[in-house]
Amino acid sequence: MAQQLADQPIDEVADTTAADSANPGFAARHIGPDDDQRATMLRAVGHDSLAGLVDGALPAKIRLHEALDLPDPLTEAQALARMRELAALNNPLRAMIGLGYHGTITPPVIRRNVLESPAWYTAYTPYQPEISQGRLEALLNFQTVVADLTGLPTAGASLLDEGTAVAEAVQLARRNVRKGSVAVVDAGILPQSLAVLRTRAEAMGIDVVVADDLVAALQSNEAFAVVVQTPTADGVVRAADELGAIADKAHENGALVIAAADLLALTVTRAPATWGADVAVGSTQRFGVPLFYGGPHAGYIAVRDKLERTLPGRLVGVSKDAAGTPAYRLALQTREQHIRREKATSNICTAQVLLAVVAGMYAVYHGPRGLARIAETIMHRTRRLAAALDAAGHPPVHRSFFDTLLVEVPGRADAIIAAARDGGVHLRRIDADHVGISVGEDAEEADLAAVAAAFGAELTGRELGDLAGQTRDTEYLTHPVFNSHHSETSMLRYLRALSDRDFALDRGMIPLGSCTMKLNATAEMEPISYPGYAELHPFAPAEDARGYRELITELEDWLARVTGYAKVSVQPNAGSQGELAGLLAIRAYHRSRGDDQRVVCLIPSSAHGTNAASAAMAGMRVVVVAATADGSVDLTDLRAKIDSHRDELAAIMVTYPSTHGVYEETITELCALVHDAGGQVYVDGANLNALLGHALPGRFGADVSHLNLHKTFCIPHGGGGPGVGPVAVGEHLTPFLPNHPLASEAGPESGVGPISAAPYGSAGILPISWAYIAMMGADGLRSATEHAVLAANYVAARLREHYPVLYAGRGGLVAHECILDLRPLTKASGITVDDVAKRLIDYGFHAPTMSFPVAGTLMVEPTESEDLIELDRFCEAMISIRGEITRVESGEWPAQDNPLINAPHTADQVSADEWDHPYPRRIAAYPSGLHRGPIAGAGHDKYWPPVARIDGAFGDRNLVCSCPPPEAFE
Amino acid sequence: MAQQLADQPIDEVADTTAADSANPGFAARHIGPDDDQRATMLRAVGHDSLAGLVDGALPAKIRLHEALDLPDPLTEAQALARMRELAALNNPLRAMIGLGYHGTITPPVIRRNVLESPAWYTAYTPYQPEISQGRLEALLNFQTVVADLTGLPTAGASLLDEGTAVAEAVQLARRNVRKGSVAVVDAGILPQSLAVLRTRAEAMGIDVVVADDLVAALQSNEAFAVVVQTPTADGVVRAADELGAIADKAHENGALVIAAADLLALTVTRAPATWGADVAVGSTQRFGVPLFYGGPHAGYIAVRDKLERTLPGRLVGVSKDAAGTPAYRLALQTREQHIRREKATSNICTAQVLLAVVAGMYAVYHGPRGLARIAETIMHRTRRLAAALDAAGHPPVHRSFFDTLLVEVPGRADAIIAAARDGGVHLRRIDADHVGISVGEDAEEADLAAVAAAFGAELTGRELGDLAGQTRDTEYLTHPVFNSHHSETSMLRYLRALSDRDFALDRGMIPLGSCTMKLNATAEMEPISYPGYAELHPFAPAEDARGYRELITELEDWLARVTGYAKVSVQPNAGSQGELAGLLAIRAYHRSRGDDQRVVCLIPSSAHGTNAASAAMAGMRVVVVAATADGSVDLTDLRAKIDSHRDELAAIMVTYPSTHGVYEETITELCALVHDAGGQVYVDGANLNALLGHALPGRFGADVSHLNLHKTFCIPHGGGGPGVGPVAVGEHLTPFLPNHPLASEAGPESGVGPISAAPYGSAGILPISWAYIAMMGADGLRSATEHAVLAANYVAARLREHYPVLYAGRGGLVAHECILDLRPLTKASGITVDDVAKRLIDYGFHAPTMSFPVAGTLMVEPTESEDLIELDRFCEAMISIRGEITRVESGEWPAQDNPLINAPHTADQVSADEWDHPYPRRIAAYPSGLHRGPIAGAGHDKYWPPVARIDGAFGDRNLVCSCPPPEAFE
Repeated sequence: MAQQLADQPIDEVADTTAADSANPGFAARHIGPDDDQRATMLRAVGHDSLAGLVDGALPAKIRLHEALDLPDPLTEAQALARMRELAALNNPLRAMIGLGYHGTITPPVIRRNVLESPAWYTAYTPYQPEISQGRLEALLNFQTVVADLTGLPTAGASLLDEGTAVAEAVQLARRNVRKGSVAVVDAGILPQSLAVLRTRAEAMGIDVVVADDLVAALQSNEAFAVVVQTPTADGVVRAADELGAIADKAHENGALVIAAADLLALTVTRAPATWGADVAVGSTQRFGVPLFYGGPHAGYIAVRDKLERTLPGRLVGVSKDAAGTPAYRLALQTREQHIRREKATSNICTAQVLLAVVAGMYAVYHGPRGLARIAETIMHRTRRLAAALDAAGHPPVHRSFFDTLLVEVPGRADAIIAAARDGGVHLRRIDADHVGISVGEDAEEADLAAVAAAFGAELTGRELGDLAGQTRDTEYLTHPVFNSHHSETSMLRYLRALSDRDFALDRGMIPLGSCTMKLNATAEMEPISYPGYAELHPFAPAEDARGYRELITELEDWLARVTGYAKVSVQPNAGSQGELAGLLAIRAYHRSRGDDQRVVCLIPSSAHGTNAASAAMAGMRVVVVAATADGSVDLTDLRAKIDSHRDELAAIMVTYPSTHGVYEETITELCALVHDAGGQVYVDGANLNALLGHALPGRFGADVSHLNLHKTFCIPHGGGGPGVGPVAVGEHLTPFLPNHPLASEAGPESGVGPISAAPYGSAGILPISWAYIAMMGADGLRSATEHAVLAANYVAARLREHYPVLYAGRGGLVAHECILDLRPLTKASGITVDDVAKRLIDYGFHAPTMSFPVAGTLMVEPTESEDLIELDRFCEAMISIRGEITRVESGEWPAQDNPLINAPHTADQVSADEWDHPYPRRIAAYPSGLHRGPIAGAGHDKYWPPVARIDGAFGDRNLVCSCPPPEAFE
Repeated sequence: MAQQLADQPIDEVADTTAADSANPGFAARHIGPDDDQRATMLRAVGHDSLAGLVDGALPAKIRLHEALDLPDPLTEAQALARMRELAALNNPLRAMIGLGYHGTITPPVIRRNVLESPAWYTAYTPYQPEISQGRLEALLNFQTVVADLTGLPTAGASLLDEGTAVAEAVQLARRNVRKGSVAVVDAGILPQSLAVLRTRAEAMGIDVVVADDLVAALQSNEAFAVVVQTPTADGVVRAADELGAIADKAHENGALVIAAADLLALTVTRAPATWGADVAVGSTQRFGVPLFYGGPHAGYIAVRDKLERTLPGRLVGVSKDAAGTPAYRLALQTREQHIRREKATSNICTAQVLLAVVAGMYAVYHGPRGLARIAETIMHRTRRLAAALDAAGHPPVHRSFFDTLLVEVPGRADAIIAAARDGGVHLRRIDADHVGISVGEDAEEADLAAVAAAFGAELTGRELGDLAGQTRDTEYLTHPVFNSHHSETSMLRYLRALSDRDFALDRGMIPLGSCTMKLNATAEMEPISYPGYAELHPFAPAEDARGYRELITELEDWLARVTGYAKVSVQPNAGSQGELAGLLAIRAYHRSRGDDQRVVCLIPSSAHGTNAASAAMAGMRVVVVAATADGSVDLTDLRAKIDSHRDELAAIMVTYPSTHGVYEETITELCALVHDAGGQVYVDGANLNALLGHALPGRFGADVSHLNLHKTFCIPHGGGGPGVGPVAVGEHLTPFLPNHPLASEAGPESGVGPISAAPYGSAGILPISWAYIAMMGADGLRSATEHAVLAANYVAARLREHYPVLYAGRGGLVAHECILDLRPLTKASGITVDDVAKRLIDYGFHAPTMSFPVAGTLMVEPTESEDLIELDRFCEAMISIRGEITRVESGEWPAQDNPLINAPHTADQVSADEWDHPYPRRIAAYPSGLHRGPIAGAGHDKYWPPVARIDGAFGDRNLVCSCPPPEAFE
């Protein structure tokens, strides 16, 4: 329009634009196609308008006819201004509260080049390892840190937080021990860890016995595990012989010993493995990860030999590529929930990769000496505080500590805490008579002085305290990577080199079906670095967290409105946790009505594997419902299953649109059938990007959903986490939402307990989704959905003649993703989905989802953020690959030596002096010249995979999960 | 130490570390080598300690024996906290002051991925075009924007600001017209532009005649140029016929017409070329570049045909590479000051590349329609304000305007401005009776309402005003690059693709002699994005700029202390401007004493070419002093030159240590000789990185220096700017520092006038140098110098047996850089410095400085930030290249076909199906495997140049300086 205006005398233009913003709305930046592109795409799918397309695709019965009830959209500048206002309402004093969350200093070079770098934060989970070597190396560093410090050989690539890590460890112990139902837990455990464990244990039939005297408790219970917190919540460092006695007793009884250990303390105290721990868990937050009002942070877990195959979550291992070069990839995938479903060892899918990368890089940057120096400084500061308090008549209750003091101040706790707050420090209120003090890396002399003053004491050089003989005497972080990058220049280059090996959204589209890899806008991302959000402790007093409270309340409210539910809790910090929260709410609901026997959960055969794993964790029994030939839930089978389990029916879990990418016409009928039988309907929100603004799950029949803020609501995938999985429920389920023992306002008193360690889960990244909704508004969100559906149908239309498109709904339309069937081609040519996926790398693309939900297929989800140029580039690559397959089918290229099975091709390979393949180097490296962009000068921009195809099985047979020696690469 | 501590019982450690910081100081992060590496390097150069090395290298006579007088160093966290405090003391209301600085919205995707991206900001000037294609394309976009909007075919790659651009344009006109001494200047010119022009004109003998009636003024003066501001400072848009009449009159008289035009206004008003302008200049600040309290911003200049070869500053042009692919590089380098010296067309070296990239990308992101929409919205908002004021009895003085109103309010200006300030808006106080209002892109409805309310008016939908018939009717930005990247996803990928083509400090060392490419730490960089620094208008009232004032005062004070001078002005926004300021101070000093005849400036033959160009601009006559065989100033010749010019002697300009990288023993004697003859000593601060903390130029004999904050003080080079060139003077020269007509506190009343358009030049990046000094402290700065000297001597020691090292001082030591002599090799083998420089790209390095100060040599400056691993990698590459040259010398490889003259090798070339070179592909692409890093997994990280060797001469013969059509790349 503006261009037209420029062609006529401006003076004559009516003032209709006068009140407009100078900028197009944010939605126009978020959505890829412009007007011309949209018109082209609509023509290709045979519709005149977006509205017509959605009318054609979406069942009329579920259509929403009014606009979403949201405020007018903000511009980017307005949203950023509002985010700054809210951040200013938080008051992050020096956090000396402890309880697993500690002041730390994120090195600016890591903040800017990891946390704030699209190359890191827009990456997907490293399922395509050849184009993920950078973040896999970063995770291997993380695993090495955890393994070295705990002394346990195998560490995972992170868990969601310390609370869930404790629960996961207990589940792991139960799977391995297979006798007894009691988990003995240290009375010194962090209160939120205990509460999270209890939430899960109740449904799984585990008895949690909390004890001061762990040896005695092991004596009197048939326990399969004991959890030892070290140091304890109150700061106690136990003597080594005391820990040894606990471990001995446990092992004598056949129980596993789980240490919940502070990783930084381990740089100066003995490794858990040395006193007998089988498993160690904890948080790596204080390795440079901002407090973020509770999350996201990377939890950790490490295990002794023989337990690695039951580790929950992801594990990075070393294998080799087709050229024999060491290469990284996810190891032991057979353990995972998408394969084992209800037999899975855990429902964990997401890790906390971005935060694990930060924690690992913190160790790389400081090195072993730097970490020890930080720990020692903290320890000596704490000892000086202890001496000062002692001199002032407040001797700390315990003398053996690392960083945390417990002080008894009869009747004076509130006054002292208030005085400390006035001095700029948050302390821990234990009760009216006790105060906790925890010293972090960021505490400065003035902070210590303020704390002392609050007690009427004064700091001197004198120290008091010891480590109970626990001083560490084993080495750690001896690998060169932890001893090389201690200057900022070197660190910067290491981070750049790693990120350059990877393919993320900042290079090109990632059309992963069911993953919704859309734009993570900068304006959404910037605020998470604001100190007001980044530096607040989760247990800071409410008066100092007003900005977060306001933002969270608003976000929960908006999420409820856009889904049609009564209430939302943002606490679950991953989709899997949202599922568990939702199922526990259903379970509690049935039990509140005396329906304790309702434990059957119906799950369609095409469901995400997590669904089944979560149901099992919620104490339910999974019954599978068949699919019809077109991929829909088979209503006949559903009726039959309902009939056989009518009295036991707890719930059905379905995904809508289905995991086949189709809007099933029968969804309302399905809901009615289940409701009629007394069951609840759980709609998995994974595919909400195909519904938002056009249908409300909470209104068309569902009782509960979890949402994936890291899909539909723009939280970036971070290379495999963080995610956020809010749970949304109807009115009748609101009493059973998660709550939190340390934050009464975080959930209903009648709630199921905490699902995550922190009251608001990954609060620190909620500003991202807040900003997305605030800037899109009702029209923007609706339009995004329309463009997502348009893009999927466009891809389906362009590729249909080359690859059969499996499943379609009304009018032959798919929803927001489409499945390309490669099985006939594979049969004819031997070329597999794997080969096509790897060959796409040569063309400069990340592969679509492979073999889910149907083996031998590729599922493509382009999202609304890809413009037509990129969509066409992808379609042309796929068509070109189809041509290559034909050459294999026809025998022109041998089945054992062709560009597909040899893909991806590295620069090393195509520039080698020898080349004896039956196809030319040019075709290997630059197929169809498609790596060149459309714009003048945008050629030259080929992405080279750093390694050739990786042999995953080799790595699983020869499991190596920490940094290999440099010689391995020679 | 920490590691040792960990090996003994911590309880026994004395509390000496207790008060220490948990982190090593910032200096340990800034300086590359660690203890072990330093020891190795010292051994290699034959010294026991850093102190010993510097004692050996630096003349005792100039050594500083006390520590620098600076505050204790801050940690990164403390520095950031202090920077936030200072930012909070600035109060950037909505800036509606105008005068060439306008509210604008930096798209967050550009802020994060250009301004905050090390890949962009740590890059050097694109003198090695093969590894700079990304920023060269970005600059070509910038030039295309300027050329399209002005209608003039050739635009430069940016100038320093609008004020200096006006002055440069006047100089350009004078060079081309060669008659008359009068420049007629529009009375509507921006006051700071006029003042900058006057500062320069006075020394160059140009008469500036300011006139309301430009036709009449041209009639009555023999003018070589007329400068027309459009719109005027008060906002007037002149009628087209009025502009045409001015141009006709000027052309009739043989004068050139210079339009100082608002670039955004040009999206809706007629292009200057259409009404007769020969030259257009201005600022591109409002294209998304933050206000930054005045800078840095990119000034622009564009010229009609036939004037392009006298354009000041850099010009990017299209040429082709060895494979015939279009490729970009700097064009017409023969114009530049480093070649033409005192005959140079300008002393400009630095451009404002980083800001020009931002401005160009702003146009890419908005496209022509978006820009027009922004301009129209601004215009309509201004018209609504005009109507509202009119209705309230304050009709704007002019009716034809774009964004700026002049309002007459007898006696009430201060009250209205105060009311607007209370409403959150800064207006322009013209005088007690007049207020200026300028509407920017960022103004919102509430701001307009606040302005109206301050006048007692109320906004309605009614509009008032016109464009005086100037409505634009020609197209612009029709190239695809401006019509493709309008979604954030596409923009993000375009920015990444461009930056990936380039080699910057984030990939590896850039050992450019005389350029000091050291770490630009994140903690130094982060604050420049804080709104308190980024969004403040340079003419905001002092009470709203307290943070900046405090920071600038402190920085100027610190800079004076570390150089030994009495006072520093940070106003000059480039080294060249610092030179000019210093020479003008000398000139003014002599004239204040009646020594008007002192106009001879002695300059050694080895000096930076800028020196001579600046001296010419300061109205001085350059007399060259010879060098001795060892590269020092020839004192015999100096004495002779002084004798011949004793009465006319104004100054000598020397660099210390010399441009040969040697600490000359004779510096104090040289100073004395010049002083004895009544001259002043100017020490160019380019090599201050070899002195800081060890010698004070202001104490060992110099009267004035300029500093390069973008060298020694860590402001990044930004791909070729911004730079900052403060001028530092002894007590007797302080009355002659720069000042500013709009900011009395920015300099002495007796000063020489402004050197830059803004009172504090590039204020927005001063936080970088402030942070560097604050975090390094006296010990850190001294240590940095020691390590810089150590690194240069280490490289010299390792390479001496392979390449002769030219020049050395005491004990065979160099200063902070060393010159490798390739001339004998070139003679023997035909391999030139160019070949070695390009071959270094294949090894993953940016070349050292080529053929400066001695043709046929390479000058290496490693800086203190490179660790031993990187230094060794470089040395090994150079040694390996020496071996390759031997194979050419011996005839093993033909002189016409070897890896050196074919370098750099692109991925395209080494993976081509054909390969007919006499050396294998592997040697071309991966010579010695040196692209692999030292750490496990850090292989794979080869940097591939996007184009092969570029043919510069072809491009100069076929000059193309705007975006080539996409077909050119096919």
